[in-house]
Amino acid sequence: MEMEILEQLIVKNDKKIIFLIMDGLGGLPQSPDGQTELEAAATPNMDRLAIAGTCGLLDPVGYGITPGSGPAHFALFGYDPVKLNVGRGLLSAAGLGFPMAAGDLYMRANFATIDKKGLITDRRAGRLATEKNELLCKKLQNDIRLSSAKEVFFLTEKEHRALVVLRGGKWSEQITETDPQKTGLPPAQAQAIVPEAVSTAAAVNELSGKIIKALSGEDKANSMLLRGYAKYQLFPSMADRFGLNPLAVAGYPMYKGIARLLGMTIAEDTETIEDEIKMLGAKYKDYDYFFVHIKATDSRGEDGKFDDKVKVIEKVDSLLPQICALNPDVLVITGDHSTPAAMAGHSWHPVPVLLAAKNCRPDLATSFGERTCLSGGLGRMPMKYLMSVALAHAGKLQKFGA
Amino acid sequence: MEMEILEQLIVKNDKKIIFLIMDGLGGLPQSPDGQTELEAAATPNMDRLAIAGTCGLLDPVGYGITPGSGPAHFALFGYDPVKLNVGRGLLSAAGLGFPMAAGDLYMRANFATIDKKGLITDRRAGRLATEKNELLCKKLQNDIRLSSAKEVFFLTEKEHRALVVLRGGKWSEQITETDPQKTGLPPAQAQAIVPEAVSTAAAVNELSGKIIKALSGEDKANSMLLRGYAKYQLFPSMADRFGLNPLAVAGYPMYKGIARLLGMTIAEDTETIEDEIKMLGAKYKDYDYFFVHIKATDSRGEDGKFDDKVKVIEKVDSLLPQICALNPDVLVITGDHSTPAAMAGHSWHPVPVLLAAKNCRPDLATSFGERTCLSGGLGRMPMKYLMSVALAHAGKLQKFGA
Repeated sequence: MEMEILEQLIVKNDKKIIFLIMDGLGGLPQSPDGQTELEAAATPNMDRLAIAGTCGLLDPVGYGITPGSGPAHFALFGYDPVKLNVGRGLLSAAGLGFPMAAGDLYMRANFATIDKKGLITDRRAGRLATEKNELLCKKLQNDIRLSSAKEVFFLTEKEHRALVVLRGGKWSEQITETDPQKTGLPPAQAQAIVPEAVSTAAAVNELSGKIIKALSGEDKANSMLLRGYAKYQLFPSMADRFGLNPLAVAGYPMYKGIARLLGMTIAEDTETIEDEIKMLGAKYKDYDYFFVHIKATDSRGEDGKFDDKVKVIEKVDSLLPQICALNPDVLVITGDHSTPAAMAGHSWHPVPVLLAAKNCRPDLATSFGERTCLSGGLGRMPMKYLMSVALAHAGKLQKFGA
Repeated sequence: MEMEILEQLIVKNDKKIIFLIMDGLGGLPQSPDGQTELEAAATPNMDRLAIAGTCGLLDPVGYGITPGSGPAHFALFGYDPVKLNVGRGLLSAAGLGFPMAAGDLYMRANFATIDKKGLITDRRAGRLATEKNELLCKKLQNDIRLSSAKEVFFLTEKEHRALVVLRGGKWSEQITETDPQKTGLPPAQAQAIVPEAVSTAAAVNELSGKIIKALSGEDKANSMLLRGYAKYQLFPSMADRFGLNPLAVAGYPMYKGIARLLGMTIAEDTETIEDEIKMLGAKYKDYDYFFVHIKATDSRGEDGKFDDKVKVIEKVDSLLPQICALNPDVLVITGDHSTPAAMAGHSWHPVPVLLAAKNCRPDLATSFGERTCLSGGLGRMPMKYLMSVALAHAGKLQKFGA
């Protein structure tokens, strides 16, 4: 199915859709005969929804492909994650709320440490304090001019991470990174991958040299590694594509950034899961699509903490009645990808999904877990089509053809 | 998912993958309430792997499509079987180890019998003895010159089958076959399907006429039918695409040919299943991907011998501990397509698959069979993506996107 037909079928109504996303939800057991994090968690509220709703397993990008958070979220929102794969720089810029403009080139930057020979000794400059990062970005902003760019911007993200923007120039993303991904090597020279990128590579190398010069007085953060190149790009919004008026409730800049790229309104100041659910309730009458992002499931998975990930899932389940009390027309509970604690990282395993709405056809899933989702009514489906099913259950899709 | 992204994500490591392919593995019961060949077979070793591993069902080409061996194997190796569908002539050339070169046109040829009126009475010349085929190919090689080709080669395959090669000319595959697929008709004239193919059609018709003239003294093999046209084509190798160093352990020329087209090293002189498994062990340290091809399952299926196919599967199961003792990082057990004895031929039914590796998510399959694979964690998937999942479990794929 081509996704283009979807947009031709959209009808607007006042029905409301909530996507409750537990980042990295999918898991693995700790031993072959054990349970996954979701299976092990006591989730009476989700289980009740699973019986009445429809379950399944989602592939964020494709069989065997481990997705980053960017592609995985694009897929959740009904966008093709391969066609829309963008450099991390653009996600950073969106996450920081940087006023983007056509002609910008965005780069993800790490402050790093080099020794007297110019060899990298720490790719994260000892996980620099964010305050120090802010001081150094101000210094670089004052000191550095480039012949080939009208303007250069240095913006602090967090710890050793920053965003660098070149504005006003003919840029190409097709250059290699200056981060060699290893210590004991000098920062790499950016190389053009296509002929059109030669001038961009030259500009980035000039920039890299000037940064090292400007930071020469520092003992730790005395260089910067550049990667995640992305040109400015305008995305078709969820309003334009699906006729939705969407609100994002997310604590982390990265996810706010993705939501902002797709034209969602961003709810600010939600630190905890409780904050997020309170915000959802407070804004519920003003929007018709809600992206509620819970980061802790992924963080505990990344840390390899099985029991802690179980606890986060149980906490979300305990708060679920507050969401159900809003009586949403469609409630989707899933993750963006799997982050099994057993692997302490993202993985390629498909993601369990539960959709609760009117007109769900009964299936064989009697609780919410990876194994029960195998016999769910959604089957195993590409994640990018989840939005179609949600829109359908909300009555927001017309019949196709006569 | 586009397969192109796969190649961008490849990382090399020393993990080893074995694909144990029982040709035509998928089956059907002899009566509606019965068991398939695989279900009927006693396979304690495979069943044990099915519990710990992940099962599923593979579609070699597409729903309802019965694949030939060429497309089915391309799909197994992670190549798009529709885009890469090649004329049988090329597979024959590769299988015979013919020194292929750019500008070649390959044709599958059958020796056939025509009567005095020039009408075909036997499309296989009484299944000619291979020795006679060799004599006649030598004669044709001596006698025949074409004005439009620098060289013509005649090579014996087996029985009535031969390979004919035109070298040095501007060839097109877009011509019709000279085999009318029926007796009582004369050999057909090759017709150009596109304007660029007119000269190729003329060359093939000239060739066809000269062959009949040269064979006029024969009573049985007095003509040749030409089909399976394929120009020389260079395939992206498994080394280039997946960073693998692959070994093929296969007894039959056709499968060696496919493996050779994809750049695999070919292990020679393996007649029996025991030979093949011994070869696997002997070469195990030198490669990181192993294609082990077992033909007998398909042959017994083609013969309509249900019980004999069951016995072959049981034999493979009994030898499986020798493969498991190598401790491969990923072991895949499947077929290239289904060959139900009940149909005595290839069929479109999806193929049961079992993948055993670390990080398999538990599923509901507790033995290896078509029915249990319905509740396997791989679900039902296009065969061409099986390689992605195997690479993922072997840690040979990076994360996609930031």
